[in-house]
Amino acid sequence: MSEDELPEHVRHRPPTALDHPRPVIIACPQFKSQINLSRLVRLVSCCAINHIVTTGTGKIDPKVARNGAELVQIERRRSLAPRLSELKQAGYRLVGLEQTTNSRSLYEYRFPHRMVFVLGHERLGITADILPLLDDVVEIPVYGLPYSYNVVTAATMAMYEYCRQFPQG
Amino acid sequence: MSEDELPEHVRHRPPTALDHPRPVIIACPQFKSQINLSRLVRLVSCCAINHIVTTGTGKIDPKVARNGAELVQIERRRSLAPRLSELKQAGYRLVGLEQTTNSRSLYEYRFPHRMVFVLGHERLGITADILPLLDDVVEIPVYGLPYSYNVVTAATMAMYEYCRQFPQG
Repeated sequence: MSEDELPEHVRHRPPTALDHPRPVIIACPQFKSQINLSRLVRLVSCCAINHIVTTGTGKIDPKVARNGAELVQIERRRSLAPRLSELKQAGYRLVGLEQTTNSRSLYEYRFPHRMVFVLGHERLGITADILPLLDDVVEIPVYGLPYSYNVVTAATMAMYEYCRQFPQG
Repeated sequence: MSEDELPEHVRHRPPTALDHPRPVIIACPQFKSQINLSRLVRLVSCCAINHIVTTGTGKIDPKVARNGAELVQIERRRSLAPRLSELKQAGYRLVGLEQTTNSRSLYEYRFPHRMVFVLGHERLGITADILPLLDDVVEIPVYGLPYSYNVVTAATMAMYEYCRQFPQG
């Protein structure tokens, strides 16, 4: 790199602004580790996704979630399955992140534009009442121990792939 | 999905095994939040990357890093710049993750196979002593507030993209 091309920080570059939030809803159970919901809120807010359906009463930590804490709607349900059925009726495709007998690699999968992205519990994964509702299941190749990504790490990879496929929203 | 195609969990699917660790080294400063190093260790271990160069004395929490805590070599340096120059001499391309005047979108960037992936501090980014050493700088499009990903979240997206480009190692 020549002297006059030395890179300089651009810490306030305007983001890629979308006219509307993305037509994506996140559905997840109450996580074992409460911090995961707050991390998820910051992630999806940065991706211009503003709606999470979850169970339980887990608090959002604004130090972790940042502005996402105000911008992302957290819809609390007693259980996810009935709400997922409603959303499916309303035209959302249900896409789960899980290792199953019919899951497809995130490398190959082409996301639907309008979808509910369904996450599982850290230990239990996506539960048996929800698995049959899913239209598609995707999994992420893993190459080394502990052979499993943290649930928000996995969601991060999938949300990145979604945004890569729909760079303009 | 028909009845006989109902998905079932496969919680112990064999991972995509690589014959060798990936020719990738991670370089990062001591993070503001200690948990970030432990999260990074689990991430890179799952990606079959087993070497992190860092500064400071931040501890690895094995509850967060899981097996990565034993498998990933943490090389501690007083400062990163001299070590990065050495690695560059040894044939590693230095790829930074930062918003700069000449950074390229992660959507478009083609990773070199053998590289050092350089991360910045949560608040300060990649410091001025390191920026001029970098061969390439990549940034990740962001679409919503707070307009910045957590450093490990951003690293997660970039490591996913690397693995997607080199699915067999």
